[in-house]
Amino acid sequence: MSERNIRVEPIDRRAVEDQEVEIVERKGIGHPDSICDGIAEHVAGALAREYLERVGKVLHFNTDETQLVAGEAAPAFGGGEVVDPIYVLIVGRATKRYEGQTIPTETIALKAAREYLESEIPQLTYGEDIVVDVKLGEGSGDLQEVFGEDEVTVPMANDTSFGVGHAPLSETEQIVYNAESRLNGEFADDNPYLGPDVKIMGKREGDQIDVTVAAAMIDEYLPNMDAYIDAVESVREFIEEIATEYTDRDVNVYVNTADDYDEGAIYLTVTGTSAEQGDDGSVGRGNRANGLISPNRSMSMEATSGKNPVNHIGKIYNLLSTDIAERVVEDVDGIRDLRVRLLSQIGRPIDQPHVADVHVVTEDGVVLSDVEEEIEAIVDDGLANVTDITRRVIDGELSTF
Amino acid sequence: MSERNIRVEPIDRRAVEDQEVEIVERKGIGHPDSICDGIAEHVAGALAREYLERVGKVLHFNTDETQLVAGEAAPAFGGGEVVDPIYVLIVGRATKRYEGQTIPTETIALKAAREYLESEIPQLTYGEDIVVDVKLGEGSGDLQEVFGEDEVTVPMANDTSFGVGHAPLSETEQIVYNAESRLNGEFADDNPYLGPDVKIMGKREGDQIDVTVAAAMIDEYLPNMDAYIDAVESVREFIEEIATEYTDRDVNVYVNTADDYDEGAIYLTVTGTSAEQGDDGSVGRGNRANGLISPNRSMSMEATSGKNPVNHIGKIYNLLSTDIAERVVEDVDGIRDLRVRLLSQIGRPIDQPHVADVHVVTEDGVVLSDVEEEIEAIVDDGLANVTDITRRVIDGELSTF
Amino acid sequence: MSERNIRVEPIDRRAVEDQEVEIVERKGIGHPDSICDGIAEHVAGALAREYLERVGKVLHFNTDETQLVAGEAAPAFGGGEVVDPIYVLIVGRATKRYEGQTIPTETIALKAAREYLESEIPQLTYGEDIVVDVKLGEGSGDLQEVFGEDEVTVPMANDTSFGVGHAPLSETEQIVYNAESRLNGEFADDNPYLGPDVKIMGKREGDQIDVTVAAAMIDEYLPNMDAYIDAVESVREFIEEIATEYTDRDVNVYVNTADDYDEGAIYLTVTGTSAEQGDDGSVGRGNRANGLISPNRSMSMEATSGKNPVNHIGKIYNLLSTDIAERVVEDVDGIRDLRVRLLSQIGRPIDQPHVADVHVVTEDGVVLSDVEEEIEAIVDDGLANVTDITRRVIDGELSTF
Amino acid sequence: MSERNIRVEPIDRRAVEDQEVEIVERKGIGHPDSICDGIAEHVAGALAREYLERVGKVLHFNTDETQLVAGEAAPAFGGGEVVDPIYVLIVGRATKRYEGQTIPTETIALKAAREYLESEIPQLTYGEDIVVDVKLGEGSGDLQEVFGEDEVTVPMANDTSFGVGHAPLSETEQIVYNAESRLNGEFADDNPYLGPDVKIMGKREGDQIDVTVAAAMIDEYLPNMDAYIDAVESVREFIEEIATEYTDRDVNVYVNTADDYDEGAIYLTVTGTSAEQGDDGSVGRGNRANGLISPNRSMSMEATSGKNPVNHIGKIYNLLSTDIAERVVEDVDGIRDLRVRLLSQIGRPIDQPHVADVHVVTEDGVVLSDVEEEIEAIVDDGLANVTDITRRVIDGELSTF
Repeated sequence: MSERNIRVEPIDRRAVEDQEVEIVERKGIGHPDSICDGIAEHVAGALAREYLERVGKVLHFNTDETQLVAGEAAPAFGGGEVVDPIYVLIVGRATKRYEGQTIPTETIALKAAREYLESEIPQLTYGEDIVVDVKLGEGSGDLQEVFGEDEVTVPMANDTSFGVGHAPLSETEQIVYNAESRLNGEFADDNPYLGPDVKIMGKREGDQIDVTVAAAMIDEYLPNMDAYIDAVESVREFIEEIATEYTDRDVNVYVNTADDYDEGAIYLTVTGTSAEQGDDGSVGRGNRANGLISPNRSMSMEATSGKNPVNHIGKIYNLLSTDIAERVVEDVDGIRDLRVRLLSQIGRPIDQPHVADVHVVTEDGVVLSDVEEEIEAIVDDGLANVTDITRRVIDGELSTF
Repeated sequence: MSERNIRVEPIDRRAVEDQEVEIVERKGIGHPDSICDGIAEHVAGALAREYLERVGKVLHFNTDETQLVAGEAAPAFGGGEVVDPIYVLIVGRATKRYEGQTIPTETIALKAAREYLESEIPQLTYGEDIVVDVKLGEGSGDLQEVFGEDEVTVPMANDTSFGVGHAPLSETEQIVYNAESRLNGEFADDNPYLGPDVKIMGKREGDQIDVTVAAAMIDEYLPNMDAYIDAVESVREFIEEIATEYTDRDVNVYVNTADDYDEGAIYLTVTGTSAEQGDDGSVGRGNRANGLISPNRSMSMEATSGKNPVNHIGKIYNLLSTDIAERVVEDVDGIRDLRVRLLSQIGRPIDQPHVADVHVVTEDGVVLSDVEEEIEAIVDDGLANVTDITRRVIDGELSTF
Repeated sequence: MSERNIRVEPIDRRAVEDQEVEIVERKGIGHPDSICDGIAEHVAGALAREYLERVGKVLHFNTDETQLVAGEAAPAFGGGEVVDPIYVLIVGRATKRYEGQTIPTETIALKAAREYLESEIPQLTYGEDIVVDVKLGEGSGDLQEVFGEDEVTVPMANDTSFGVGHAPLSETEQIVYNAESRLNGEFADDNPYLGPDVKIMGKREGDQIDVTVAAAMIDEYLPNMDAYIDAVESVREFIEEIATEYTDRDVNVYVNTADDYDEGAIYLTVTGTSAEQGDDGSVGRGNRANGLISPNRSMSMEATSGKNPVNHIGKIYNLLSTDIAERVVEDVDGIRDLRVRLLSQIGRPIDQPHVADVHVVTEDGVVLSDVEEEIEAIVDDGLANVTDITRRVIDGELSTF
Repeated sequence: MSERNIRVEPIDRRAVEDQEVEIVERKGIGHPDSICDGIAEHVAGALAREYLERVGKVLHFNTDETQLVAGEAAPAFGGGEVVDPIYVLIVGRATKRYEGQTIPTETIALKAAREYLESEIPQLTYGEDIVVDVKLGEGSGDLQEVFGEDEVTVPMANDTSFGVGHAPLSETEQIVYNAESRLNGEFADDNPYLGPDVKIMGKREGDQIDVTVAAAMIDEYLPNMDAYIDAVESVREFIEEIATEYTDRDVNVYVNTADDYDEGAIYLTVTGTSAEQGDDGSVGRGNRANGLISPNRSMSMEATSGKNPVNHIGKIYNLLSTDIAERVVEDVDGIRDLRVRLLSQIGRPIDQPHVADVHVVTEDGVVLSDVEEEIEAIVDDGLANVTDITRRVIDGELSTF
């Protein structure tokens, strides 16, 4: 048995799938809050990799306070223009001097932001449609943890905090998550008129699922109102179709329902994101670490994106608990719903949480004692290898929003 | 019976008070995130009142993206100094021109920020220790709702969103909430060495409650290490004492446990907030609308502070559901735990939510049907008077964080 | 005879007073460029004094790149308001760490800026009507010169540069200089409707002097158009009157000639400076070190304000040459016009200029040889005591714009 | 004879070429002040051209307050890196809305700045090594002048101001001007180690000319100290050689004389400009409109770069007077030195200056009356075609710094 304080218990509620009302939301990668999350996390990864390369270990930093101030745009069928650029301020701390070396943290941050934006929101011309500036304070040296190339120690928890993960996703969650992901993937590849700012809200009441989508369309590819209307319909049909892959329930899809064609009030953009006109954004205000906002489930307020992956307990425990939950559901049969919570205690090694409690709803016919040991082993293994999370974050393998 | 879609149901979980593990957190008013919340909400109130006075109705605005970039300070027993000022950028939208009138929204915002800071964090000299700047974009005119002096109409929901409120507070929640509030009230009045940046984490396992406090001490009032140690102890005793007013359970209180007296690593500040040195902040990252972060309960991700109180459904429904929950618990006997959720539907009047569902845990011996009607009546009344929430926010009567 | 390379020669032009056309300009202390000069110089003085007090010598700094971005205002008879604040960015370099001490250069800068603005442009509410921010880079340590409390050495010239001074002022120069100074002094004391942004252009053709004034009036003190018209006339009469103290020539005075009363296009302001509405400013773009722009005379392009008074040769030589010129004219009879140029050579002590050349126009009946020796002695003495300039700048005794 | 008030008179001083001491300076295109001048002027040209294309005439704008805040760099033989980026804020006014059209002035400004920087200082990666932001206030609509495609009227002077031009350049001036221009041209093409930040000071005493050069070397192309020393020597030889094309006087050339090889204190940069490390810059602080700082001559304080070329009298008259002076010297024989001053009067058409006075030093054997008429005709023609200056500025044909 593990020496760690791991508890596996029945959960004191129904599985989310069985609750009467369920609400789920996902902000797509082009949403202003997600842009901030994405930049913050991409900058964090770049800093961590540069620290490793330059000084052999990750020094103290955090870039989790990036703020976006919306611009002004004048979209027009066939192609409009950005009038006043979007302004992004990367805010955080970073260690700039270490044993005689100067680490160009600001330049690293700007370069990472540029790469991210050019890859994810290519319609935005960097430095013209969007101005990115950076204010990184000097990180305090005493927060440095050893996470090096040659040597890795398990850090002490920097805070009394907790992380929470869930699995499996409910049908509604799967629809919302995958609809966004596939719209911004295969669909956008074929249909360049769809911008990356896609916001999806799923609501299930009993067996009726409503999916409400706000999808920013890109004017350059839409010559007129008819083309726009067709584009909206194509998004609706796409989601309707893929929804059947995740559920047998009734699904209604609504796209850009606030449009008023007569007034010409439609969701047309120059760049594919509402950040171009009036919608500000910031880190940690959107999706949780598993990519969803799911008020039916326990959530952590911690911003996961941009945090240091070595010693920031909020980030590590949110990612680790999600990872553990997914592994349990994959490996263990008979689980209908599962929540993993990891609670740190300041000053204790992070592989020794104050408590790791796992709450389980088993499927009919399965009793907890059948699976308890298996679950505990997976949790124990996850904690033993907690620094894998750090490594995978640094390598950009884990999504944080 | 109400024409509104109100459901009252048993909750599918134990009361939070009866759960095995409970976690609660509150960031005090001087925490960098709370400073942002406070400025954002204070600016919002000032704008709303100025709009009413100048044009007779509240025009479109949002100031919910305020960002704080930490400064640098050199605290010292007896009085240190701020080295590099804190920088705050108030970000949002506001209507600046209306029927030929120009509304000085930036000046209103700065004035409100100044008043708020001088009142709540008086140790900060405005314009020297903290620089506040403002970037308010032009709000789009078509979002204007009628909320005037002479006439009030119920606005349409601007979004498909939801709000959630809970009552009563659990013992742990009461301790956490009141400890911060009374520390920053009666205690600080008598003991000026306590800064407003007090962060409190409560954890209950069974009947054991641990309260962990990080309290920024102000150097000017502490001549030496002994005085600091006494100050820490006085905070500990104060909380220990007041905790008994809220619970009979065992309570342990830990204050500034990360201190290392030998190293001189203590939580000493010049201004009473960690924003002076390295801790950035932003709106909506801290306390929820009821002043707590309570992962045992359903939470909304919406930033409540700084949102327009007339038409922003996230703000209004979070405040209204909390208000309703509190009224139910006050007026109806036999309720052990209660959750009110209000779900809007875009385009419907906000007094007609898509669904208002109330989940109840009754006390032993009480059945839901006994109280169902009473509860429904209170919910109905709350919705019928939804614009009261707007009015109370504008008048500064409701706290949002 | 001096060991210094001092030349006294006849000038190869007529005295400015005798030239056919003469142009002179002065931007008053409330002009946007002068505001920048004033802040920059006031901040520089404060830094120098703080360095002396804290570490016993003046460390490297420069604050000569302050930039002002104009605001937006809505003036109105009886009192309008600032709509969008003026933004000032103090830019420069300063040494922040010295032998283990941290010098709070940003806070010192902001405090000095505030004091200056509250004293000189009291109509501007600091932090509301005007936002001041600061970006001081780290000064390079190797530029430190010894200018201490106990010991003063003569620094080496940091550049090959030159300074130039003139005396006496021509009649037109005296009128322009004193009109601004007395308007912002005795006149404004009695007549609060006059703002500090007074721009005066003097033009003399032969014996006809035209003085053109742009004077920002403050709306709060002017109830209506008649009051404004009276105010303009009062300024005109005041200048006309004092002009007679400086000349017997014909003087015409024009005040706010661009006004169009019918259109209501008048020079009315809320705060007494055009910086409130559309007029940006920066250091070194306005008055030269003697307070005037005088294209009839040799001028240096160096910004004098905000430069380090210890080792910045441009600043020191402009102030010293002016000081020498004034002393010569005061002490030596028979001089009609005099120009002092000091040319440094990088690496030489600044009391040993590469060349100090003095060009003189003597009065009729005086030959150069009569006064040559006296002049040379004064120049020699001025150079020998060059560090007095530094001391007087630090003590705020010398005006730089 | 012209109806304009043109005076041609002998100058009351020797030709600059014949004065005993002469000082001339030029800041190369990569100097921080010149970078600001260049961006400001390039942005101005782009705005003017866009206005013409979009609305058929040039609307009100000014971009003459651009400010550069230096970065931080870590140069190293073989290639170092920028640590903290240079920050440029484009400040000014521009008309953003005109007859229902929105002109994207901020985007135009950023695009122009980018093009300029990528062309002139290619070593700087835009958006990484240098962050450019823009704050353009709304220009006041009533300042619009007609300068259109179909119709051009002569605008009224917006100010009482003056411009001044000189010809021919003295030998020292020619050396300084051409040394910089050819170093940044043919020399840099062949020798990529030379950066564009070349600052040249020429000093002539009698027949001895000293040329002092500060030349920023680019580390990427210099593997070691020997290569650096060779590079410095190559610059010295190049200037020494070309100097003989402009003078028969003795010329000494000094390059990077502040270097200290033993200390390793040399002028090595990553990007070829001192803006990368500690040297701030702003518009109008460097070269005058003719590309030189020449205290021996009358100079205007007006910043020429970034001003509106239609109605800004300071800009137009400085460029026109220089243009006229050059044409006179080209077309008229027997002129040794010439100064053209144009003085505007507010409200008068700019082709009717209050006075145009031309001061001439003729060559031996030439009397003024021989050339007076010719000169006057050229001045008259220049004024008659004053709007040509506007056109040439818009087309980017005239240099302003």
